[in-house]
Amino acid sequence: MNDFTLYQPTYYAFGRDTQHLAGELVQRFGGTKVLLHYGTGSVVRSGLLGQVKQSLEAAGIPYVELGGAVPNPRSDLVYQGIELCRREQVDFILSVGGGSAIDSGKAIALGVPYEGDFWDFFAGKAVPAQGLRHGCVLTLVATGTEGSNSAVITHTDGMVKRGVGTDFNRPAFSILNPELTYTLNPYQTACGIVDMMAHIMERYFTNTKDVDLTDRLCEGALKAIIAAAPKVMENPNDYETRATLMWAGTIAHNGSLGVGRQEDWASHNIEHELSALYDVAHGAGLAVVFPNWIKYVMDTNIPRFAQFAVRVWNCEMNFDNPKATALEGVDKLQAFFKSIGMPLTFADIDAKEEDIPLLAQKARCDSEGLLGGFVRLTKGDIEQIYRMCL
Amino acid sequence: MNDFTLYQPTYYAFGRDTQHLAGELVQRFGGTKVLLHYGTGSVVRSGLLGQVKQSLEAAGIPYVELGGAVPNPRSDLVYQGIELCRREQVDFILSVGGGSAIDSGKAIALGVPYEGDFWDFFAGKAVPAQGLRHGCVLTLVATGTEGSNSAVITHTDGMVKRGVGTDFNRPAFSILNPELTYTLNPYQTACGIVDMMAHIMERYFTNTKDVDLTDRLCEGALKAIIAAAPKVMENPNDYETRATLMWAGTIAHNGSLGVGRQEDWASHNIEHELSALYDVAHGAGLAVVFPNWIKYVMDTNIPRFAQFAVRVWNCEMNFDNPKATALEGVDKLQAFFKSIGMPLTFADIDAKEEDIPLLAQKARCDSEGLLGGFVRLTKGDIEQIYRMCL
Repeated sequence: MNDFTLYQPTYYAFGRDTQHLAGELVQRFGGTKVLLHYGTGSVVRSGLLGQVKQSLEAAGIPYVELGGAVPNPRSDLVYQGIELCRREQVDFILSVGGGSAIDSGKAIALGVPYEGDFWDFFAGKAVPAQGLRHGCVLTLVATGTEGSNSAVITHTDGMVKRGVGTDFNRPAFSILNPELTYTLNPYQTACGIVDMMAHIMERYFTNTKDVDLTDRLCEGALKAIIAAAPKVMENPNDYETRATLMWAGTIAHNGSLGVGRQEDWASHNIEHELSALYDVAHGAGLAVVFPNWIKYVMDTNIPRFAQFAVRVWNCEMNFDNPKATALEGVDKLQAFFKSIGMPLTFADIDAKEEDIPLLAQKARCDSEGLLGGFVRLTKGDIEQIYRMCL
Repeated sequence: MNDFTLYQPTYYAFGRDTQHLAGELVQRFGGTKVLLHYGTGSVVRSGLLGQVKQSLEAAGIPYVELGGAVPNPRSDLVYQGIELCRREQVDFILSVGGGSAIDSGKAIALGVPYEGDFWDFFAGKAVPAQGLRHGCVLTLVATGTEGSNSAVITHTDGMVKRGVGTDFNRPAFSILNPELTYTLNPYQTACGIVDMMAHIMERYFTNTKDVDLTDRLCEGALKAIIAAAPKVMENPNDYETRATLMWAGTIAHNGSLGVGRQEDWASHNIEHELSALYDVAHGAGLAVVFPNWIKYVMDTNIPRFAQFAVRVWNCEMNFDNPKATALEGVDKLQAFFKSIGMPLTFADIDAKEEDIPLLAQKARCDSEGLLGGFVRLTKGDIEQIYRMCL
């Protein structure tokens, strides 16, 4: 096990009707004036935004509003939010929505007390030393940002997408009401399932030795998600299944499952280029990329992929041929993605073979020109993984 | 799944040499003057206390000292600590040691800003509304207090042992260096293993439906502990195994594994009377009580105990006779406790049959005169469970 630090200060209020706690929780965490930040129309139409406003009003907390956060949230709205917060002397950001509104809110919270350009943090030119407090009311289960230390923003100038990880990104509170996710359609729901599984798998595939405890936690969470998936597809209004998925999505990315382990994250980065070029949903792109990444890197650590097959997918261990077991596991992963309506190939997402060199060229490698913690991929490797997705 | 709130603000610094971070972490969490609180001689003799002092001095943080915390920490030392903190204008409590020093430190932290008697909180006469910040350097893996919201104190007047759960009991930081636990002897180590397993099992045995996710997490943690136990008995200086157990002990009781579930806690309370009367270690008493509690209540929910047997103990499911499977699971639990040198019967801990009526009479029931969340035990039930321990 590697040394680690873990800081998860987020207060989770989980359950039915918890959106009505918004005002009380802002108060508890020291907010006196709020920026109410949200996306496009759905939180307005559903009446959720009205309920949150009522809760703030009941607690006597004044607020200003900023809507308009879009998927892959943009820097221009962040700049607008920062200016609004400064002008109105806001001291707490409350985001209502999915990953976009929440990440946008996190970026605003970092930017308000910073004298320079908030993008410095995302461009790696500066490290956040403070941030406004922020919280959220979650409506989409996928990104895990409701508990994570990360935020991802796309700069409007050049459409560069960058993330920053800092403890200041941890929400002061997150309101998690599974009922608010009933309206997610099957495709959005499935994309969320793939995304949370990917968050766990990026942590699970590791070279760190003696991580049996977190292995077991990762495997347990994956098994619970896999069991919940067909149920939610069958009955999108089943509270218990929505609850399981909502909490699984949160712990998948809040650090609980990955402590003390080297992580990988190549698949996420390889997918990001697909989302950027074809506007495909992140979860859908991951369903295409992740199994092929596994097949490509499998030989570097057959025992780990065999363990994944046996413990997560209930494959029978083939002691004479562990690789056969490992391959059976990845087949089951793909069959599972297919069963919930996810794409498996470039053709399924209208991605094109001729774009592969460009995709590989754009894929963001580290300072050594390599990608991934578990297996260090070259640009050539990345190109081959894209080709396996054809 | 039940509605829940979860608040785990503790910053964990896990790994080798982390004790040297004490000063820096006190500073990070706003401490300007520290009460350095510890137990008896071992943290002094090992040199740990000196290292922590050096760290505080290097960070320029003044401190006053209070040693003398004993197992089942006492109210008189708490009163002494509160007075010392007020006199010296201490604003941060740093406990160095095991559950005793940490719980004692938590009680002091609650008492300093409270105008009344700190015992009011433990007697259920008042609810904490504030508390000094506190942190710890952990040297004993068992109680989970390094991440939990609870503290247990024994009042010197009448030797009444009471606990209080409040978010103010959550440490601001916990320093977890597995190397600091190498010196625990096999008996202390085994008691810690039983205690952390019991913390998980008290959460695992539940009537709450649709808790597959937390079931899986509990099962995974138990499996990892069971796998680590023989290794630590064989080689007490194995860093990796000590690390697994240290982190398992923390998550067993910091709330991660029990969210959204009804919990039980009868076995803990039944055991407390054994510890009180015979001065037996809590973990050792739990090894005697918990399996017999399972046998006594098993018929109320055979599927759950069969699941425990199959998933945690790798028993083969007997579909014709699930109870046989459930019984096999509890046999394996007892065999495991025995394998790490734990007692299984009253005779093993020098407890006496003739004391049973007194033990049952003293066992602390709720306002309805019953004990336990999963199964509601009467005094008669409790007496029968003690008899099964003979």
